[in-house]
Amino acid sequence: MTAQLWCFGESGNAYKAALTLELAGYDWSPVFVDFFNGEARSPEFKAINQMGEVPVFREGDLTLSQSAVIQLHVAEKTGRFMGRDRNETLRWLMFDNHKVSAQAGPARFLLNFLPAEKRPLGAAEFLQARLKGALQVLEAHLTDREWVADADPTIADLALCGYLYYPEPFGFDRKDWPHIDRWLQAIQGLPGWKHPYDLMPGKPSDRAPKEDI
Amino acid sequence: MTAQLWCFGESGNAYKAALTLELAGYDWSPVFVDFFNGEARSPEFKAINQMGEVPVFREGDLTLSQSAVIQLHVAEKTGRFMGRDRNETLRWLMFDNHKVSAQAGPARFLLNFLPAEKRPLGAAEFLQARLKGALQVLEAHLTDREWVADADPTIADLALCGYLYYPEPFGFDRKDWPHIDRWLQAIQGLPGWKHPYDLMPGKPSDRAPKEDI
Repeated sequence: MTAQLWCFGESGNAYKAALTLELAGYDWSPVFVDFFNGEARSPEFKAINQMGEVPVFREGDLTLSQSAVIQLHVAEKTGRFMGRDRNETLRWLMFDNHKVSAQAGPARFLLNFLPAEKRPLGAAEFLQARLKGALQVLEAHLTDREWVADADPTIADLALCGYLYYPEPFGFDRKDWPHIDRWLQAIQGLPGWKHPYDLMPGKPSDRAPKEDI
Repeated sequence: MTAQLWCFGESGNAYKAALTLELAGYDWSPVFVDFFNGEARSPEFKAINQMGEVPVFREGDLTLSQSAVIQLHVAEKTGRFMGRDRNETLRWLMFDNHKVSAQAGPARFLLNFLPAEKRPLGAAEFLQARLKGALQVLEAHLTDREWVADADPTIADLALCGYLYYPEPFGFDRKDWPHIDRWLQAIQGLPGWKHPYDLMPGKPSDRAPKEDI
């Protein structure tokens, strides 16, 4: 039975779940959510997830939302990416969710997907300053280790990288963070790795105004 | 063996762990972290938690950080507050961490614990708007149910309420949210419930400028 993941390319939170599924060799297929036309807030989608968020995972009778819950499920079911100390893995996964992605996601959205005149004053700068503080913790942690929570990659790595491969500028440049850069390169080297725009349907160029031919 | 929890009264994230320990009947005692004098960023504290954050839990050889990890540990060890469907409990706990507390905590800090001249322009308003959206999801969810993730209280309830009992204004008023208000009242009715300023050491009035006598 093929599992389904409601997602779209621009969502780093969906990417965490999609990448975990893909690298764990799960039988899954994406279901495109047209976020930029409001589908995530539609009554039809809210019937699937009242939180109005992707990702949503469905496999038979089981429906899960929140990327961390989906990642945990996949890790437990496949025996992949949990690490030897689950609590250490989850500690870094939680650090991602509330300190890294919680700033990177909204900052990237405000600066790239919202018209400049609609951007709340000062919000992106505030988020970027907080993101920088969190990345400093991650950079220091990776100074003398290859992976975040164990000697091998775990769902914590696959959460923390969620927004860090996107090309749109939001205040993160790999060149500024040598240890994070090396670690991102190592994740890219895992068998089956794909960029978010290759792993999930939907990307900014799909929505760009078309030039007259 | 008494477990230790590094915490301080103003931290809603620490409160989630402390309240879970207390209501589960755990043998624990608080260790005060003097956050407002920079202790969380001191080398001594970072040796305990490199993330520079409370709460930190220690019991013998086991050290945990991130409130969700501590809550999960306590729930698993005591058999309390996990709910019948762990994934449903964790889904709401994650929703708290990245959608509710991730806005409420910084908004409250900016508006109450930072001098007005140091507040980043527009940041609190942005956080409050996002918090309102998350509280609307919670309010709708609680319309026809007593607890968030099960027929009984779970660690999801004890996470989501983390910042909602504090008196300092940050854009949440119980009167505006009747179902959330009723649910908070129900949590207050659980045997052993304590307000954050009664459960953990440290509160704003400890730091208020002293009047001349």
